[in-house]
Amino acid sequence: MIKGKFITIDGVEGAGKSTHIKFICDYFNKKGINLLLTREPGGTDIGEKIRELLLNPEIKTIDNDTELLLMFAARNEHLKNKILPALNRGEWVLSDRFVDASYAYQGGGRGISDSRIDILSNWTLKDFCPDLTLLLDIPATESIKRVSAKNKDRIELEQIYFFENVRAHYIKRAKQFPDRIKLIDSTKSIEQTKKNIKNILSNYVF
Amino acid sequence: MIKGKFITIDGVEGAGKSTHIKFICDYFNKKGINLLLTREPGGTDIGEKIRELLLNPEIKTIDNDTELLLMFAARNEHLKNKILPALNRGEWVLSDRFVDASYAYQGGGRGISDSRIDILSNWTLKDFCPDLTLLLDIPATESIKRVSAKNKDRIELEQIYFFENVRAHYIKRAKQFPDRIKLIDSTKSIEQTKKNIKNILSNYVF
Repeated sequence: MIKGKFITIDGVEGAGKSTHIKFICDYFNKKGINLLLTREPGGTDIGEKIRELLLNPEIKTIDNDTELLLMFAARNEHLKNKILPALNRGEWVLSDRFVDASYAYQGGGRGISDSRIDILSNWTLKDFCPDLTLLLDIPATESIKRVSAKNKDRIELEQIYFFENVRAHYIKRAKQFPDRIKLIDSTKSIEQTKKNIKNILSNYVF
Repeated sequence: MIKGKFITIDGVEGAGKSTHIKFICDYFNKKGINLLLTREPGGTDIGEKIRELLLNPEIKTIDNDTELLLMFAARNEHLKNKILPALNRGEWVLSDRFVDASYAYQGGGRGISDSRIDILSNWTLKDFCPDLTLLLDIPATESIKRVSAKNKDRIELEQIYFFENVRAHYIKRAKQFPDRIKLIDSTKSIEQTKKNIKNILSNYVF
């Protein structure tokens, strides 16, 4: 029996995930709920090693399907050995990215069809799904501006049309699953965005 | 259009793959055919890195489904960036292990159902299949004896019932696909086994 709640935060690079993750943790802490913070790809020993492979800018050739299979390998380990055990202990979990990122990056960005991603998603997750997803939205031009030119990882090195497609797919997902995915305009000031997030969390019946 | 031929050699540890790979290469060389030799998991830059993860004896916890997804990630890269390009150039390819190993190890050994493996196999390979598979068969007790106790990798560290199940699944695959998979009794002497392999290759119409 799953007792805890699973919240995910998603969006393109530079959308403000790190800033707002801290805010969300503080929000729940004040309510007496400790969030277990984790991230994708990664979150487990083997998952972090897969993350290193996936983001290594020195690796020039990874087939798109390989990238997606690696993402789901990391996600499966994350689910089975970190997320589900925590939820089953009654803990709440906040993940920096989850399955929606695969539809956005490997789907929108790389061009793998939703139906092909669905197959791996069903294979790995079955009917498991976040309780709430906060999707921070900024235009691709803004994303590129906010990410430092130095030390970009393999995916951050992609061009603007890639991030435009990623963003468009995130928005498409939010429209497909409006009850779960809450789209948040992250071009506003940090304070305004915090207010919007707080509003969503306070209205959300867990 | 695929012009080259794809041959795989498979079987449990200690079944003599390395010895007979050399013999098979020599056999074809004498006929003027150079075999591109490759292996799974591995065969590409990213595939070899996945192999390191999979076989690292220090990694104690990898979920079975993660192991299978990683195998198919390595296999996809192997297929798209090594095997298919070579076949399309008209080259012949010999792979030390291929998809049958996933049915044997992650299916028979780890207990993942054939139908679940079929989903990832269809997703990755579509209708691609080896032209010929040489399956070297030895009992699990013999396999354990032949593999040095030192420096065993994560999978070689498994217990005998694991290898009994792996072997049983290999034999099941050979019965399912008798035209493609040729079962070879590898408990015979090396010379006798070479004769048996030569007999198969000479009777095989490529």
